[in-house]
Amino acid sequence: MAFKAPVKDQLFCMKELAGIDKIAQIPGFEDAGYETAQAVLEESAKFNEGVVAPLNWSGDQDHGSWDNGVVRASKGFKEAYAALAEGGWQGLGQPAEYGGQGLPKIIGAACVEQTMAANLSFSLCSILTGGAIEALLTAGSDELKTRYIPNMVSGKWTGTMNLTEPQAGSDLALVRSKAVPQDDGTYRVSGQKIYITYGEHDMTENIVHLVLARTPDAPEGVKGISLFVVPKFLVNADGSLGQRNDVYCASIEEKLGIKASPTAVLVYGDDKGEVGPGAIGYLVGEENRGLEYMFIMMNAARYDVGLQGLGVSERAYQHAVGYARDRVQSRPVDGSAKESVAIIHHPDVKRMLLTMRALIEGERAMALVGAAAYDTAHNHPDAAVAKQAQAFYEFLVPLIKGFSTENSVEVTSLGVQVHGGMGFIEETGAAQYYRDSRILPIYEGTTAIQANDLVGRKTSRDGGALAKAIAAQIADTEGQLAARPSAAGKKLALQLKAARESFLQVVDFVVNNVKSNPNAVFAGSVPYLMLAGNLVSGWQMARALMVAEDKLAAGEDAQFMAAKIATARFYGDHILARIASLRDTILDGGDSVSAMPLDAF
Amino acid sequence: MAFKAPVKDQLFCMKELAGIDKIAQIPGFEDAGYETAQAVLEESAKFNEGVVAPLNWSGDQDHGSWDNGVVRASKGFKEAYAALAEGGWQGLGQPAEYGGQGLPKIIGAACVEQTMAANLSFSLCSILTGGAIEALLTAGSDELKTRYIPNMVSGKWTGTMNLTEPQAGSDLALVRSKAVPQDDGTYRVSGQKIYITYGEHDMTENIVHLVLARTPDAPEGVKGISLFVVPKFLVNADGSLGQRNDVYCASIEEKLGIKASPTAVLVYGDDKGEVGPGAIGYLVGEENRGLEYMFIMMNAARYDVGLQGLGVSERAYQHAVGYARDRVQSRPVDGSAKESVAIIHHPDVKRMLLTMRALIEGERAMALVGAAAYDTAHNHPDAAVAKQAQAFYEFLVPLIKGFSTENSVEVTSLGVQVHGGMGFIEETGAAQYYRDSRILPIYEGTTAIQANDLVGRKTSRDGGALAKAIAAQIADTEGQLAARPSAAGKKLALQLKAARESFLQVVDFVVNNVKSNPNAVFAGSVPYLMLAGNLVSGWQMARALMVAEDKLAAGEDAQFMAAKIATARFYGDHILARIASLRDTILDGGDSVSAMPLDAF
Repeated sequence: MAFKAPVKDQLFCMKELAGIDKIAQIPGFEDAGYETAQAVLEESAKFNEGVVAPLNWSGDQDHGSWDNGVVRASKGFKEAYAALAEGGWQGLGQPAEYGGQGLPKIIGAACVEQTMAANLSFSLCSILTGGAIEALLTAGSDELKTRYIPNMVSGKWTGTMNLTEPQAGSDLALVRSKAVPQDDGTYRVSGQKIYITYGEHDMTENIVHLVLARTPDAPEGVKGISLFVVPKFLVNADGSLGQRNDVYCASIEEKLGIKASPTAVLVYGDDKGEVGPGAIGYLVGEENRGLEYMFIMMNAARYDVGLQGLGVSERAYQHAVGYARDRVQSRPVDGSAKESVAIIHHPDVKRMLLTMRALIEGERAMALVGAAAYDTAHNHPDAAVAKQAQAFYEFLVPLIKGFSTENSVEVTSLGVQVHGGMGFIEETGAAQYYRDSRILPIYEGTTAIQANDLVGRKTSRDGGALAKAIAAQIADTEGQLAARPSAAGKKLALQLKAARESFLQVVDFVVNNVKSNPNAVFAGSVPYLMLAGNLVSGWQMARALMVAEDKLAAGEDAQFMAAKIATARFYGDHILARIASLRDTILDGGDSVSAMPLDAF
Repeated sequence: MAFKAPVKDQLFCMKELAGIDKIAQIPGFEDAGYETAQAVLEESAKFNEGVVAPLNWSGDQDHGSWDNGVVRASKGFKEAYAALAEGGWQGLGQPAEYGGQGLPKIIGAACVEQTMAANLSFSLCSILTGGAIEALLTAGSDELKTRYIPNMVSGKWTGTMNLTEPQAGSDLALVRSKAVPQDDGTYRVSGQKIYITYGEHDMTENIVHLVLARTPDAPEGVKGISLFVVPKFLVNADGSLGQRNDVYCASIEEKLGIKASPTAVLVYGDDKGEVGPGAIGYLVGEENRGLEYMFIMMNAARYDVGLQGLGVSERAYQHAVGYARDRVQSRPVDGSAKESVAIIHHPDVKRMLLTMRALIEGERAMALVGAAAYDTAHNHPDAAVAKQAQAFYEFLVPLIKGFSTENSVEVTSLGVQVHGGMGFIEETGAAQYYRDSRILPIYEGTTAIQANDLVGRKTSRDGGALAKAIAAQIADTEGQLAARPSAAGKKLALQLKAARESFLQVVDFVVNNVKSNPNAVFAGSVPYLMLAGNLVSGWQMARALMVAEDKLAAGEDAQFMAAKIATARFYGDHILARIASLRDTILDGGDSVSAMPLDAF
């Protein structure tokens, strides 16, 4: 099934919902308006449809191999990565001074979504590299920046994030890797890191690892973790590559999905390089502030994982629609034909496809609105505007990550179901998305970790003020919807209102009980995240409905607008409808979770 | 993770909810009371824990291979199947005159659930054999019965069901395989069948295929399909094996899961045997009634697939609990410890485990109550009692199949999530359940097919009378709950009432609109199935709560009873809570499904 980048819906969301015109008014982004976005997205579509997507299935089947520390990437990946570098895609959002194009996140995110949909495994390498660049930009010394960033921005080198150790997953306080300072200002790093995406590969000549480790005198816990750059090959002052550093890939994991993305176990300091025992590392920023810097990468990465959920969902949706149009089976239930028809005619198949589609469109709108908030937060000249946008963006990150990835498991599962028995046969391709998606609610912080963030930092810390401010904006949208002549608008206004009121009940519950009954609140944290993500996405779909109704009335792009209206209506009837049950579960379900004795499981 | 058969909960459900004592009062089942059940289940547990379960993971990794028509089963499967035969497990529920033990389904189903949980792939061979026996018992001539059934009951031979062809999946009207009558009363069968579970293997000396095909003058559609026995090797009059028949395994599928179960493409009539062109087949029953007979197998098989959903869920649950007890990560949210604790302490992990457990216990209770209804229907001397039980059983079959298998995808997915990053690594084993479970809502009729059955034959045909009669029984349970002194009972009474009232609203909607607006009704058919399955399972959990409260008060088996109460409460708070949203979706969501233009997807 050939992949088609969803350029049209991306542009609709950017223009009508995320307000790219306002982003283009921010100094520095003057050239980043709608026309630029359109041109970039169409070019990106060509690259992703033509170069990246065709390697998705083959990469899954013939995935990379490990041989004595050397990892061979899937066939074609090296050439595709070179094409990505050549096209400047790695540097799209990076500063011009390091060779990037300095485009806003709203454009970059849309391009990244395309690459993820085209080939999730492939996309991860440039995503991780982007995260490493971000950490260096934020906290690296000028020397580190100058030495490493340009070759990462150009796509000549790649980057990794080294957080997890066997005993330290969600709980980074347990990190044990060591970094011992040397007289020359460098450190010698040792320890074992696991789950390192693209931790080793043969696509580029060097790999820049960003590694969490403890210095000898560091305090216990997360306040004693520092961040280091550990390049695979040392980099000489003239930029040429030097000795092989003491970091070694002990194995790659046999995984359920994203198989073409090598997940490495990396061993530091086992005297397997050319530098003697201990990998040579360079401190990023100050000692003991590593977690803080890593969180910068993590926040960017969490947003990106949300896009992965969206991307793999889009791909699964396109696959399922294609099959449902082709596969002829059974007569229609309404008797409108005497012969068997394509299964897309059957109401249950339509319901499944619309569920997929509604979730995707809601998530995309939320993600691009979030990207616009990021751009505003980081670049708007008015500090108050920037601050407000930052708070909004930070509220959205756990929703974009958690809601979109949990849904991606549902969406890709529906994609298999639409295919019937064929969906279970690997060759069909639908199963790959189901396997690939399953990591998304886990890595870069499980959904529970996102939900903790939502409950703690994003909701309780300000007593629910931001959550309520967002709800007030949603209420404005309800008012606009209710005032419209269309029945669809009025119905969606009521549905949105019910959802918002449920959200407010839950916010009050969280704020009022998080200290007195934390077990009950955290038993409902994931349902709260799903409720909030559902509401915010539904809010965007409601805004989209109004735009689409107006444009349809004006005769603009009738088929697209009619589909948008139908999808928004479906969102109201089927997706917002989930909120009532989530609310009941949260408000009234904590005690029965606590009641179960642990030894009785 | 060693598997432990859930004997205790099975016995609880059999005794307290499904009424095995009443089954033992039915003539012929006098010896099949609680003590027998206990002895059989404990023996079954030994076999499944000791012999079958250890082959689950190895079978997934080293799954069977195809070589020029010959299929080698996974290592150890042949020996395990011999042990299954030796132990008499294949004939547990079969008539004594054919070498079976004649035990009721209520006991057989519990044993089968254990085998499915132990090893889903392995279990399928005996399940399919059981289905083939059932079809022969129902419609086969005495000669066919005598020649084939004893060796199938003993486990010496296995059986298959051959329905699907590339163009005929859910829609059997499209079956094209041919059967041409010969002068000697046999038929020559030709055509291609796909997705034939254990269609070829080397575990037994012969395989008895039951095949749907059309005779030359058969009418179009489903009324022109006949059923044939086509043995892999012909069987001589003295019972010895004769010529190799003309049925050939062209390939086995590369699947997402249940990999150790070979899924064959079978070609009939390609002159690859020793009998000349055309596989020699024997008509079962009368010509053109094949679908009717096949439905007998299908109904048994659908029930069994429901047990598969239950079984794989149980296995995934046990795996997840084991990991959650071992894995230490992060401090408790309530500050009750300063150190990191096992993740089972964290409320979100408990919520996930309880979701798994509550679904499993509800499904198990529903399945065993269903098995008792089957036993009553087929064996009760009072025709009126039997008829009522048959109707109840038939109402339950789509729920047992659809609800338990859809949930199995959710449950096994939660199982992966509990494991965090480890869950995505194949070696951990959690991913296998996630892959295995995905076929269950598809084969033996997709969830939509089950839902069509529920809407059509089971709900609309009698104007909702049976559905309402079941609701009236649930109302009785509510009354009993409400009258109890416990707060848990009173709360669950209200939750069950709300769920039942939603169910009744939906039943009225279905009955009133199925003719006038079938598209809207069938857009809600799967949500209706999920609602009904949720309600009936929840009803059983409510009954279980009352029993457990009484037994706990009497000091009987305190830990088990306390856990049952906690799980029933959780079911009310978290699972029954889903019904409100499902109801809204069904009652108010049909039009937005219809509104989407097909060409706009």
